[in-house]
Amino acid sequence: MAACAESAAPSSASATPPAASPERPAKLGLCVACHGEDGISRIAGTPHLAGQDGQYLERALVDYRSGKRQHVPMTSLANSLQPADIRALAAWYASRPGFHAGDAR
Amino acid sequence: MAACAESAAPSSASATPPAASPERPAKLGLCVACHGEDGISRIAGTPHLAGQDGQYLERALVDYRSGKRQHVPMTSLANSLQPADIRALAAWYASRPGFHAGDAR
Repeated sequence: MAACAESAAPSSASATPPAASPERPAKLGLCVACHGEDGISRIAGTPHLAGQDGQYLERALVDYRSGKRQHVPMTSLANSLQPADIRALAAWYASRPGFHAGDAR
Repeated sequence: MAACAESAAPSSASATPPAASPERPAKLGLCVACHGEDGISRIAGTPHLAGQDGQYLERALVDYRSGKRQHVPMTSLANSLQPADIRALAAWYASRPGFHAGDAR
């Protein structure tokens, strides 16, 4: 049974473990209808955010907030975020466990 | 050993299997240095594309090509893509198996 447990372990078991999960962001409620609390999109055309690169997520929100990146629902939502909210939301979704094909939708 | 194999199966084994993998896009070479052939980003700040929503990926490339979405390397690369390339690349990355935390980088 020990060998069995070993064979079922993920291949990345020896890699650096992900950082501890951050606190649930105060503004997470703005995101979950489309992106899910777990970062798995519920709506076709909407990106999955689970396990996404944190720097990329932070830049996306900053760019929506500044108007550099345009998408009506995101522009409106990002305008209600402060920089600390953006950092918290990016860290939250970056730390969700990701997904494998077939998990989502 | 049968029970062992069963316990190692992914929880989504009974879900609808993903569509068959599309053909390798002719222009994939433009993407792999940053996004990997498997859609797992090799560079901090660069998004993972594996298992991402296909409609979202297609719109991103269309928007980079039109200039609606701006990011210097992507604008330049997207300008070298035809609509059929965009569809092929979006379908390729959407059909990659995704990832779980710890798989990437």
